[in-house]
Amino acid sequence: MNDQFLTVGKSLPRIDAQVKATGEALYCSDLTLPRMLYGKILPSPLPHARIVNIDVSRARRLTGVKEIITGKDTLGLTYGRLPHIPITMDEPGLATDKVRYIGDDVAAVAAVDEEIAQEALGLIKVDYEELAALYDPICAMAPDAVKIHEVDRNIAWQVDCVYGDLEEGFRQSDHVREDEFESQSVIHCSLETRAALARYESSGKLTVWSSCQSPYYLKKDLAKLLGMTEGNVRVISPFVGGGFGGKRDLYAADFCAALLAKRTGQPVKICYTRNEEFASSRRRHAMVIKLKTGVKRDGRIMAQKASIIGDGGAYNSMGPVIIGRAGAHLTMQYKLPNFECHCYLVYTNKPVAGAFRGFGFLQACFANESQLDLIAADLGLDPIELRLKNALEAGYSHPLDFEIGSCGLKESLRIVADSPIWKTKGKGGEGRKRRGVGAAACSYICGTMGMPTAAALELHTDGTVKLIAGGVEIGQGSQTTLCQIAAEELGVAMEDIKLAGVDTDVTPIDLGSFASRTTLYAGNAVRAAAQDAKRQLFGPVAEKLEASPQDLECRHRRVYVKGSPDKGLSFAEAVRACMYSRAGMPIMGRGYYNPRVTTFDHRSLKGNVSPAYSYGAMACQVEVDSETGQIKVIHSWNAHDCGRAINPMGLSGQVEGSVGIGIGQALYEDFFFADGQTLNGSLDIYRVPTAIETPGVDTALVESIEPNGPFGAKGVSEGTQLPVAPAIANALYDALGVRVKKLPLTPHQVLKALEETKR
Amino acid sequence: MNDQFLTVGKSLPRIDAQVKATGEALYCSDLTLPRMLYGKILPSPLPHARIVNIDVSRARRLTGVKEIITGKDTLGLTYGRLPHIPITMDEPGLATDKVRYIGDDVAAVAAVDEEIAQEALGLIKVDYEELAALYDPICAMAPDAVKIHEVDRNIAWQVDCVYGDLEEGFRQSDHVREDEFESQSVIHCSLETRAALARYESSGKLTVWSSCQSPYYLKKDLAKLLGMTEGNVRVISPFVGGGFGGKRDLYAADFCAALLAKRTGQPVKICYTRNEEFASSRRRHAMVIKLKTGVKRDGRIMAQKASIIGDGGAYNSMGPVIIGRAGAHLTMQYKLPNFECHCYLVYTNKPVAGAFRGFGFLQACFANESQLDLIAADLGLDPIELRLKNALEAGYSHPLDFEIGSCGLKESLRIVADSPIWKTKGKGGEGRKRRGVGAAACSYICGTMGMPTAAALELHTDGTVKLIAGGVEIGQGSQTTLCQIAAEELGVAMEDIKLAGVDTDVTPIDLGSFASRTTLYAGNAVRAAAQDAKRQLFGPVAEKLEASPQDLECRHRRVYVKGSPDKGLSFAEAVRACMYSRAGMPIMGRGYYNPRVTTFDHRSLKGNVSPAYSYGAMACQVEVDSETGQIKVIHSWNAHDCGRAINPMGLSGQVEGSVGIGIGQALYEDFFFADGQTLNGSLDIYRVPTAIETPGVDTALVESIEPNGPFGAKGVSEGTQLPVAPAIANALYDALGVRVKKLPLTPHQVLKALEETKR
Repeated sequence: MNDQFLTVGKSLPRIDAQVKATGEALYCSDLTLPRMLYGKILPSPLPHARIVNIDVSRARRLTGVKEIITGKDTLGLTYGRLPHIPITMDEPGLATDKVRYIGDDVAAVAAVDEEIAQEALGLIKVDYEELAALYDPICAMAPDAVKIHEVDRNIAWQVDCVYGDLEEGFRQSDHVREDEFESQSVIHCSLETRAALARYESSGKLTVWSSCQSPYYLKKDLAKLLGMTEGNVRVISPFVGGGFGGKRDLYAADFCAALLAKRTGQPVKICYTRNEEFASSRRRHAMVIKLKTGVKRDGRIMAQKASIIGDGGAYNSMGPVIIGRAGAHLTMQYKLPNFECHCYLVYTNKPVAGAFRGFGFLQACFANESQLDLIAADLGLDPIELRLKNALEAGYSHPLDFEIGSCGLKESLRIVADSPIWKTKGKGGEGRKRRGVGAAACSYICGTMGMPTAAALELHTDGTVKLIAGGVEIGQGSQTTLCQIAAEELGVAMEDIKLAGVDTDVTPIDLGSFASRTTLYAGNAVRAAAQDAKRQLFGPVAEKLEASPQDLECRHRRVYVKGSPDKGLSFAEAVRACMYSRAGMPIMGRGYYNPRVTTFDHRSLKGNVSPAYSYGAMACQVEVDSETGQIKVIHSWNAHDCGRAINPMGLSGQVEGSVGIGIGQALYEDFFFADGQTLNGSLDIYRVPTAIETPGVDTALVESIEPNGPFGAKGVSEGTQLPVAPAIANALYDALGVRVKKLPLTPHQVLKALEETKR
Repeated sequence: MNDQFLTVGKSLPRIDAQVKATGEALYCSDLTLPRMLYGKILPSPLPHARIVNIDVSRARRLTGVKEIITGKDTLGLTYGRLPHIPITMDEPGLATDKVRYIGDDVAAVAAVDEEIAQEALGLIKVDYEELAALYDPICAMAPDAVKIHEVDRNIAWQVDCVYGDLEEGFRQSDHVREDEFESQSVIHCSLETRAALARYESSGKLTVWSSCQSPYYLKKDLAKLLGMTEGNVRVISPFVGGGFGGKRDLYAADFCAALLAKRTGQPVKICYTRNEEFASSRRRHAMVIKLKTGVKRDGRIMAQKASIIGDGGAYNSMGPVIIGRAGAHLTMQYKLPNFECHCYLVYTNKPVAGAFRGFGFLQACFANESQLDLIAADLGLDPIELRLKNALEAGYSHPLDFEIGSCGLKESLRIVADSPIWKTKGKGGEGRKRRGVGAAACSYICGTMGMPTAAALELHTDGTVKLIAGGVEIGQGSQTTLCQIAAEELGVAMEDIKLAGVDTDVTPIDLGSFASRTTLYAGNAVRAAAQDAKRQLFGPVAEKLEASPQDLECRHRRVYVKGSPDKGLSFAEAVRACMYSRAGMPIMGRGYYNPRVTTFDHRSLKGNVSPAYSYGAMACQVEVDSETGQIKVIHSWNAHDCGRAINPMGLSGQVEGSVGIGIGQALYEDFFFADGQTLNGSLDIYRVPTAIETPGVDTALVESIEPNGPFGAKGVSEGTQLPVAPAIANALYDALGVRVKKLPLTPHQVLKALEETKR
């Protein structure tokens, strides 16, 4: 914390807290329009089948049904997140020739109410020709496996990242070990399910209110799928009840609502029920990661060879990038002179895997941070000491050309090492319930390159500031952060900043809230816009004060001569002075941020992938019931290098969320399948941790002051979810001396591992 | 019309035409929000009374009633349009101590439906102490008249404009005549009645969707009346179904919806029925105008003395400005070396008079242009020749310091003189039905000074342009005009410009659509924003083309080197070149317009009142039934100096509307009162002209190229309503030789005048 700032660095309440707490916030499902219809989507009951015929005639005759669409009513185009990686453009708006998973989108109905729409779904008769289905990536990669898409061995994407001299690295190593780690697929479980309301005007304008993280991307995708120009598509973001990556892609709800609205001339709303969301929304990529790592006796890492196989499900979504990020993450925390990694993204007939908080990094972090503890144990080293020995530092000349402008990894590790829970390591006792402590480190990106982000603001004569900036508020607190940045730069109070929601017809370009990019990207754009406004403000004010513009500053809602606070005007007076000056100038500031564009190669992972890298470390203390195998997390101690904490309270909240969701991944959440059918696709049997399962969380902030960040800030806390699972696995080892390499760490796995040690 | 332009000067269809024609456009009354309540307002049944007590207890007990407010629940503050003229701040949100006209706002109810709200109104018991009521301004000005407000002789405002040497002017005159003219109050009759939907969040944010012409003003007024900061009030403009000045002020609907929403925590919508609108909305000021005018034998005007008494009704609204405009108008068309004018705005216990298309100019134009024809007849001069002899020209050194940058008055008059209908003058025949033709001229302002207006735009990578500008589309076609200006400046197609509606949390400042200001003010701001964007675009594009930025131009959706159309990029490519250049720059243009601020004194009318002045002339051909006194307008020929016609078709439409509404004023519309009660306050008995009563309209455009206007454009067509009534009165004189000096020119008036000539 720093006295030089008045708003930045302060734990201010979130600007959206009250309306969310009182239930006043309007979400997509709350919206209605005149003549609005309700839509429902028919999911495929089969994991892999050719569509022979769809007969909608009976459904059409149901009173209240207004329109039914199938793949034939679409342009037959496919969409995807990454036009520069064509293989990601593999998903149709509605299935045309084939269905590829149970839940695949086959047809959609618009009717006067949801019940009729649902009833109509039951009257649609689809003739399928069943095909062999593949559920396991290893089987799917067999040369003779049926093809889910027209790619060889169902491998959607392959990454080959090689640098240094791997053989030489292993030769120089004193100790080499090989391990295989497995992590499971989990689902986002945002409090608000996905929803869309579309309105189409006969003049050709489509407006979609959607619960999404990337309105600008959605606009692009909808325009493509509907054969419209992008300028005719407007996406408005109402309040969004959580995202976690799950609202990054276009969903059938968006597309079907839009197409049904276009065909009926009436607004159409589609809100997924929780069970529909389980059936058809994205999930995390399950991965199998093999690591062969060579170290010197003193712990220095000399070489690593990795293979990563990711289960992509039926369509790619962002899979090719995610699988690459898993590979890249292995190089992001520790100096690793020699490296070879091959990653495979594989199609299966399961629900689509896509973006999820952690985005591939998480799976690799579990593997790497688990193995490091194994190595430490092998060598008799303290696990944190081992990490400190290898940890990256700012300015490290990264073999893949990542430009590390700031790095608080070592400081984070030291804070965790100094934590009271770390001091309990090895002292878990001998009874039935034993305690253990484990640590793990993490690193994350702050957005990816090449996504310019802009912001605009206007100063009003009452001293308030209208801020228009993207970066959807998905619960992460970005609106509060952006307001703090604007308030700090303009020297006004937090409540003076009025930030409107995202609307692609109004908000300057911002590709959305993902990749922990908003604080850095939108924050820089907002700060630049505020600086731009200040420059304009200072001209006429300086004239009025008979001072030089460069001698002015704004603080405490005043504009004054530096060092002479009395020689000045209130901020509102200053704005009025400009507005009613001879030139009569309304003040509009604009700003944008785009890091110097560098190339990043998605096949080889070479090139600087992000303008900044955040770091952190965590220790978890667990209590394990050695008879039942049950793990309970007692406490977690976190250190997070966020560059600078714009809002420490918000940041702590983010870390708490990370710990909670990380515990779900580590201990509870998992999908069970039978012939491609998810068996636990509802909240009563899918185990999400509640407050009871969430431990006390202590968070220390490490402020490394990122040169590329606004006021030195970096992305916050997507990274802090990464170390939860390995820290718990390492804590389990500390408690019971058993190592589980497969997530989640269920009682069954723990007991099985205990059995194995006894053998 | 000019080939140098591609979009400006073209008769393009309105961008809102289709959605309005199909009924898809959403107006305020179409909007709903979750938990929305409906509001109704209790009107005063008495013209003037003290409120002794209001008992709402029975109304409160009605099931479904959620809240009732009276003056006691307000802060007791008054509002008004013109803070710099304090007397205009005379109207409370709800009546506190007194009611001042039948229809004055006494209480408001929010209930679960409109029927219950209406029923609740009937259960509110108000005890009044009746006061003497005044309906005639002359009586109201009597020294002993009861005071409606605490001002002397009920004179709310007085204007005294004097210049030159009046006595000397009359001395030099060969002919002096004195006449008295009367014009009546009429009502706007917008297709959409006034409506407001308010939502208040407990965090302190008020959002109001209102059918209004000035969202920024409404925001200011609501903040004041509710004791909120302006920054916490957001006004959004849905589609607006006509304004004509009638939606310029805050109405009780806005205030009551907001206060009821604040108190209930639920959204509240209040939509006036047509009859409610008749009872409580603004009307035009009825005026009595005495003119004493001296001329030389050749027609040169030497002196004029005027007195104007305006019936302001119960509150001032914009009356002080309107009454001054009436006086100013007398000096705006003709060289008038010596002038004295006294204007009085008087309170009466009648509905409030306020802004109405023509805004005081109209009443003065009827008087002046009628008297000029009388003078021409006295002197045996051609009426148009008389006008030409006196007509202003650009650069005329106006005694009140009006700066006339462009003036097409003479050209307009000559066009009308050359029209086929003017050639029928004096040839009306002798039968029962006689034809006649009359002419009149007009002038108008293009906004008033000191109202900075801003616009912003952003260039998208698909080549479309997001435009954010104020200037509410109230049916005048401003959105189309602004898009044409942006398209022209950027060299893109009309459909590439995407203009969002007005939202004070998003739209840069623009005080609204009134005073014929939007084309000039917002048009200049939009053009400046487009030029600003172009400058940014040209930098990286020039680099790419290896050219100099100043050698580039944009046309036909391309950016290229002037003279070498092949050496260039498509507009979309150019934007992408900027966005993906090394600097990666999203392009946001901003622009504003504020004329050089000059002072205008509302008491003496001295100072330049507007950045530009528009002119025009019209001839009307009528057929008069000499037995019934019925006048039918056969044809109207118009010439309009609009500076430059941005959209000739839109302009012709505006003139057609002016002729229609002008005919209502001239021939049909009038209010009948009994003891302050409007007797014809509904559309079945208030006579608005329909298409049947509207004649053929020919419009010639006079392009005087205004130096202060965007592409030379000025305000369009509010002025062209002015000459309709005098042209018809003059045509009546041509047909029958009778002069009616009182509007409307009803059969009764015509027959009475015929009787008088016979005497």
